[in-house]
Order: sequence, then C-alpha cells, then structure tokens
Amino acid sequence: MIAPDAIFDERLHAAAQSVQTLLSDLLDTGILPDETARPERLMAAMRHGVLNGGKRMRPFLVLETARLFDGPAEAALRVAAALECIHCYSLVHDDLPAMDDDDLRRGQPTVHKAFDEATAILAGDALLTYAFDILADTATALPAEAKVALTLKLARASGLGGMAGGQMLDLQAETKTPDEAGIVTLQAMKTGALIRFACEAGPILAGASKEDTARLAEFGRKIGLAFQLADDLLDLTADSATLGKAAGKDAAKGKGTLPALHGIDWTRARLDRLVDEAETLLSPYGEKTDVLKAAARFVANRKN
Amino acid sequence: MIAPDAIFDERLHAAAQSVQTLLSDLLDTGILPDETARPERLMAAMRHGVLNGGKRMRPFLVLETARLFDGPAEAALRVAAALECIHCYSLVHDDLPAMDDDDLRRGQPTVHKAFDEATAILAGDALLTYAFDILADTATALPAEAKVALTLKLARASGLGGMAGGQMLDLQAETKTPDEAGIVTLQAMKTGALIRFACEAGPILAGASKEDTARLAEFGRKIGLAFQLADDLLDLTADSATLGKAAGKDAAKGKGTLPALHGIDWTRARLDRLVDEAETLLSPYGEKTDVLKAAARFVANRKN
Repeated sequence: MIAPDAIFDERLHAAAQSVQTLLSDLLDTGILPDETARPERLMAAMRHGVLNGGKRMRPFLVLETARLFDGPAEAALRVAAALECIHCYSLVHDDLPAMDDDDLRRGQPTVHKAFDEATAILAGDALLTYAFDILADTATALPAEAKVALTLKLARASGLGGMAGGQMLDLQAETKTPDEAGIVTLQAMKTGALIRFACEAGPILAGASKEDTARLAEFGRKIGLAFQLADDLLDLTADSATLGKAAGKDAAKGKGTLPALHGIDWTRARLDRLVDEAETLLSPYGEKTDVLKAAARFVANRKN
Repeated sequence: MIAPDAIFDERLHAAAQSVQTLLSDLLDTGILPDETARPERLMAAMRHGVLNGGKRMRPFLVLETARLFDGPAEAALRVAAALECIHCYSLVHDDLPAMDDDDLRRGQPTVHKAFDEATAILAGDALLTYAFDILADTATALPAEAKVALTLKLARASGLGGMAGGQMLDLQAETKTPDEAGIVTLQAMKTGALIRFACEAGPILAGASKEDTARLAEFGRKIGLAFQLADDLLDLTADSATLGKAAGKDAAKGKGTLPALHGIDWTRARLDRLVDEAETLLSPYGEKTDVLKAAARFVANRKN
C-alpha cells in the first residue's frame, strides 16, 4: 500500500499540471463567441500572472473534494481553473506599487514589472472577470443551478465580504494593529474564504447534500486557518533562504499575527489541534479522504 | 399624447433613480450569507464609485429592453445594477494614476483622490466581483439558465475580449495610432460591448426568443457605435464648459478617432444612418419601442 502522503504528493503535482495545461489552453484559444478580439499584450500579461507556477493547492482541493462525491472530473477542473484565476488576479493586484509593491513573485518579475502598471491592473481585472466566464461557459458541463451556486459562492468568497475586504483590512492593519478578533476576521477573509470555497466547490459541483457541503466547508475553514497560521509561523521562524521570499516581513510592517501574540509553542499546538479537527470532520467518509487528510497535515506543517 | 422624447426623458430619469436606490441599499445591508464582514472603508469607496450620478444609460437600456418583452421589472433592475457595477468599476480603474490619471469625475474627486490608490484598486475589484454576486443572488428572481446566460454574456462583454481588452487597445493607441479598422475594433470593445450587453440583457432575462435577442443585440451594437461617435465628435467640437470635462483630449493624446479621420460632416451623416438603422431594427415591435428609438436619437445627438 502506498502511504497517503505519497499519494497526496502525486495528486497535488497532477492537479497543478492539469490546471496549468487547461489555463494555458483557455488563454490561447483565439476569439470566443461574443468577443471582438483578444489583445495580445493583455493576454500575455494574464498568462504571466496565472501560469507562473505555485503549488495550486486551491485547485487540488476542488478536484479532491469533487472526487470524494464522485463529481465530474472535467467540470471540476474547470471550476478549479476559475478559482485559480481569482487567486492569481489577487496576487497581480496585491503586488502593485500602490499595494505591497513587490518586484518578484516566485522568482519571476511581477506582472507590473514584466509589463507595466496599467497592463497589470487590466490583467488582474480580466483574470477576475474570466473566472466567471469559465464557470458560466457551456463547456463547463454542470447543471445551471450548480453554476449559479458556484458563481454566488465564488463572488462572496472573493469580494467585499471576502478576499478583497480582507486585503482592505490588511492594508489598514499596517497603520493600526488589530486586536486578536480583528486578526482572525482579517485572515478568514483574506486567505480563508477562497480555501473554504475550494472545499465547498467539490460537493456543490458533484450535487452532494447540504450536510456534506457544510461539512466540507467547515473542513475548508479549518485548513484555511491552519494555512495562515503556518504562514505566519514561517514568517517568524524561517530564514529567507528556506522561505524563498523575505522573512520577518510581518514584524517589520508591524502587522499583528497570532504567533506574534501567543508564541511559537502555542501556535504549534493550535496547528495540531486544527489538523485533528479537520481530520475528524472527514471521518464519516472513511479511507476515501486519506488524501484530503494528508493535505491538512501538509498545509499545517509546510516549510515554505 | 405625450411625445416619445418626453417619455424617454422621464423613463431615463426614473431608471437612474431606481438603480441608484437599489445600489445604495445593496451596499449598505450589512453582512450577507457567506460573508465574514464588510470593511467600512472599502464599502464607502465602492459607494463613492458607484453612486456618483451619471446618466445611467446602460441600466435604462436593460429596463426598457426587458419591458419590451414583458420581463420581470424587479429582476431587470437587479441585472441593470449588476451592469452598472461593471461600468463604474471600469471608471474607478480607468481614473487611476497608472491609467488616465484623472482627479475629477462628474465634478467629484475620483475614488483614488477621495480615498487612496490601493483602496481604489480594491473598490474596483470588489465592484466587478459584486456584479456577479448580484446576478447569481437568490434575490434575483430568474431561472438559473437565464442567470448563467447573463453571467456568461456580461463576463465576455467586460473581459479580455470586451471592455478590459478595449481599454488595453486604447492605452496602446496612445503610442501607436491604430488604423480605421483598429479604431472600430477598439471602440466596439471598450464602450460598445457593455451597451450591446445592456440591450441583450432585457430579452434574455425576459425569456425572449433567440431571434429577438439577436435583433436587440444588433440594436445595441448600432447605438454603441453611435454613442462613441457622438463622444468623439463632442471631443472635437464642443468647448470644455459645455462638455463638463476637458475637450480636445483625444487630439492632445494623438488618439485616432473616426471624426478626426473623416471630418464632422461625415460623422453627422454616419450618426443619422446609425439611428435610422437602429430604428429599423425595432420596427417589427411597433409603438412599444418608441422610447428605445428616442434613446437611439438621444445617444446620437447628445450635447455632453
């Protein structure tokens, strides 16, 4: 028998490959119905923003939670690609000079460095828009009701009350450090909402019950919390070489994080508890969820 | 009998009021399901971007084309509000320093002036996202199939192959003046696509036939062309006081326009022909379209 962690590695890698191939195909297919033209420079900037690697954890979670309920794999991959467009647009805009002002992302020039600021703003806008195009497209073979549910959930997870709102709170946190409740809300919005959506998307597109969908959403909420805690812990403990990006950025910016408030031991214990709780949520489904449980452990224990 | 132009004035005014009220309510209703919080500053910036007047021509066109096919008025108003969110997000982003760098819009400070650049980027992102939230929301009482069709059309009209792509071409036109075909494509994407969508949205949400939808889409294409031609003509002929914004900006930026290429007389004749063609497209529907015909004349003959 192959260990769940090894299967997880393999599936994560396969998910990354599949979503990369699909996104590359989608952003290279010429003019769609209702389109007049696809300006080359804008498409190139979108490709730069979306095809630049990454672990593709969110797409993986869509694919695996869909698989758990025997959802259609091809449609799941398209939903995963839509979600990745949202995640990547947020990175393109977050990197802008007016926001985090980053020149590099995963060792490559950020979109506004490789192109220019105006093009990066438009590329982000177009990626965000394209996510909803993919969901609604006739090529996404799902019932209309499922598409509407996914559209609504994705819009809520990424908008004013989700990711964009969380980014606003994060910017405000640079001038006024939030209290513990404020940090938790900020993180639930900024990074938690999309991870939670990833885990809900599978059961929704598979037509699973409300109870199953809610259970997976809660699983997503737990690993979203773990993801952010692990990130904050790494910022506190890892050196920049291991991290592949500047360490200690949160402290330098005066940003409050839970590890900074409560210390490293508290954080490690909290991460262990979150993984336990996430695994317990999946216990009704038995062995079929070994890979998702491995994903929870991976998220909590990652080293970069 | 009241003249169609007077009814048009009244309906345009009423549409503007209704969409303003709905958008103000929507962006003030506290936390929605699936939302964690709504950061006040971001919501205020979104309100600044979307409630700052304007003729609301696009919402009017949605409402009137829905009315023509006896579509549900309340759902039409919500679709109109979604479309206006897209239009207004594009204005917020276009005004940014990296884009057109405008300090004023309709006599008010632009969003990045009233708030800051990062907030303006996020407010645009959140308005764009919110458009799809409104379409998919259960409060929008339409069949799921209609919602999916509207989502797809709106995404296509505003993304890479629509408005965002047109804005990219427009930025590129500042360094390399496009030829006549290039100008036509640019304008069909930058301003035409959303106006066309406005006219298709009505028949789609009313469940009209494909033929009717295509006819109204073509009507929208014609008045989109007229809208842009009239805009370019005004830039060439009006003084800044009448226009309420700087005149002669296109020429100053070296942007090619059809009036600049062909002259004022050609442009006026072309506008007359577009209005004729738009009216002819509506002839099968008789008197019920008098207000839409008046809208076509208004768009072509506007003085600011």
